[in-house]
Amino acid sequence: MFRPEIKVLDCTIRDGGLCNNHKFSHDFVRRVFQALKNAGVDYMEIGYKSSKDQFSPDKFGPWKFCDDKDIEQVAEDCSLKISVMGDVGRFSPADVKPRSESLVNTYRIACYIKDVDKALKLTEELKAKGYETFINIMAISHALEPELDEALSQIENAKYVDGIYIVDSFGYLYSEQIHYLSEKYISTCKSKKVGIHTHNNLQLAFSNTIEGIIKGVNYLDGTIYGMGRGAGNCTTELLLSFLKNPKFNLRPILDIISSDFIDMMAKYRWGYQIPYMITGSLNKHPRSAIAVMDSKNWKNFTEFYEARIAEEDLV
Amino acid sequence: MFRPEIKVLDCTIRDGGLCNNHKFSHDFVRRVFQALKNAGVDYMEIGYKSSKDQFSPDKFGPWKFCDDKDIEQVAEDCSLKISVMGDVGRFSPADVKPRSESLVNTYRIACYIKDVDKALKLTEELKAKGYETFINIMAISHALEPELDEALSQIENAKYVDGIYIVDSFGYLYSEQIHYLSEKYISTCKSKKVGIHTHNNLQLAFSNTIEGIIKGVNYLDGTIYGMGRGAGNCTTELLLSFLKNPKFNLRPILDIISSDFIDMMAKYRWGYQIPYMITGSLNKHPRSAIAVMDSKNWKNFTEFYEARIAEEDLV
Repeated sequence: MFRPEIKVLDCTIRDGGLCNNHKFSHDFVRRVFQALKNAGVDYMEIGYKSSKDQFSPDKFGPWKFCDDKDIEQVAEDCSLKISVMGDVGRFSPADVKPRSESLVNTYRIACYIKDVDKALKLTEELKAKGYETFINIMAISHALEPELDEALSQIENAKYVDGIYIVDSFGYLYSEQIHYLSEKYISTCKSKKVGIHTHNNLQLAFSNTIEGIIKGVNYLDGTIYGMGRGAGNCTTELLLSFLKNPKFNLRPILDIISSDFIDMMAKYRWGYQIPYMITGSLNKHPRSAIAVMDSKNWKNFTEFYEARIAEEDLV
Repeated sequence: MFRPEIKVLDCTIRDGGLCNNHKFSHDFVRRVFQALKNAGVDYMEIGYKSSKDQFSPDKFGPWKFCDDKDIEQVAEDCSLKISVMGDVGRFSPADVKPRSESLVNTYRIACYIKDVDKALKLTEELKAKGYETFINIMAISHALEPELDEALSQIENAKYVDGIYIVDSFGYLYSEQIHYLSEKYISTCKSKKVGIHTHNNLQLAFSNTIEGIIKGVNYLDGTIYGMGRGAGNCTTELLLSFLKNPKFNLRPILDIISSDFIDMMAKYRWGYQIPYMITGSLNKHPRSAIAVMDSKNWKNFTEFYEARIAEEDLV
């Protein structure tokens, strides 16, 4: 029997936008919206809210900013809810319209654990504008336990936060760690929705999401064909084929993979690649792997591995 | 702390040989042998033993037959043990030299569960020739429980069998099922070595191997860069980076991936592909997916999906 509380949030355009500076055409984003709607997905994360003082619209595509006028060209008010991510320090809630004037339903605030207080302040302001709010504590594999415990307690006590996400930014965790974190988040944040967002550096993004489900996590991030930064994410097609809720339909996702994502993957090369595997296995940020994948030296795997080990010697 | 009982068996040449009719050059197999030896891997499965009456050496490369003269050209007697697989009904133990005259250490007999009696007879004859023996019951996701229970009891009572493998041929299983099977195999076959061989249709090959480890499975199959039939296997590089035994060294594997496996994967296209995902999620043999991947229609994913669903309607 399926668990009706489970919701799938597809963040292809948001996390996948990190592959191409968010330069997806309106036509393409509209087709992703339609595919997700027809597949029965619950949420579509359509990009980031970012300050145009900090990021130039000449350099970044529209989904780095998520202006309501752009969203209105691709989405509609229906059972597929629109989510937008905001990084702490990179956008101003003053630029966000009230919920009643926007197609956006949900804001997810991404922060490192040191910035949870800032994330709480942002969610308070966004809740006051009428939005559903989540806090995504990034890079949880680098968090110290007492800081995490304190952050989770603060979030549990903040009435304006609707939910919290376990985020394995570096793609380092495996099942036993996911079990531990899921139990900690769920038992501490008893009144909150709890979600999971994984990366596929060690080919564990889907399995870690399953382990979250087993432990009671109900909000599941996926991206179509795994498109996302570096090694990419848990794939939406695997999630939908695993979940038993009859409302899900795999076919619209298969169709858009066929028409668009096979070619995009060949171009942007997200997914399991040895440099991402190396940073994941060493619990490191993928930035060095992303850089080397863009270089002619990308196949010098042992050289890359030695360089990452050498960084550790410097500590 | 690592578990010293854990052994890694790399079956790149054997399972990967299903991608190219076992046509690897002697030079390449020699370099794989050296890489595995230098990486500290415990076993190298070098191919199949097959009857030349049934399979033509014109059509298949040398690693379909594993003549001792071929093995002697690529391997040596050292800490890396040589394993050969034999399918029930496809080879004769009369063609196998005594252990004292061969570099082969181990025979693994592959069979469907209906043929366990035949596999037992073969292992008895191979044990009499001096070899370590395993039985790999294939396609376990299609086995009926009473048949599996009987087979495991028979194997436990057969003194000439050294070990048994859990084999997820269709890449269908996930963690909870791996836990169940691992506990069953280990508790029934108390005196035997227990191993696991996984396929990556649902991106769960590595995670399922980890779940086997957690439950006490000690013999772990991997292939370099996941090379194997269809979606391929648990990758040897992920296994070595996960296991804590200091004897393992990732670098020789990274080097040979760089020099050989990146290009081979582009040619043979094993790994996560939507047709393999579809057969895996439906618990079906991958043969229809392998056929469609070789055709011009390989991207007609929904058509392929509908055809697999329609097969079920016919039952």
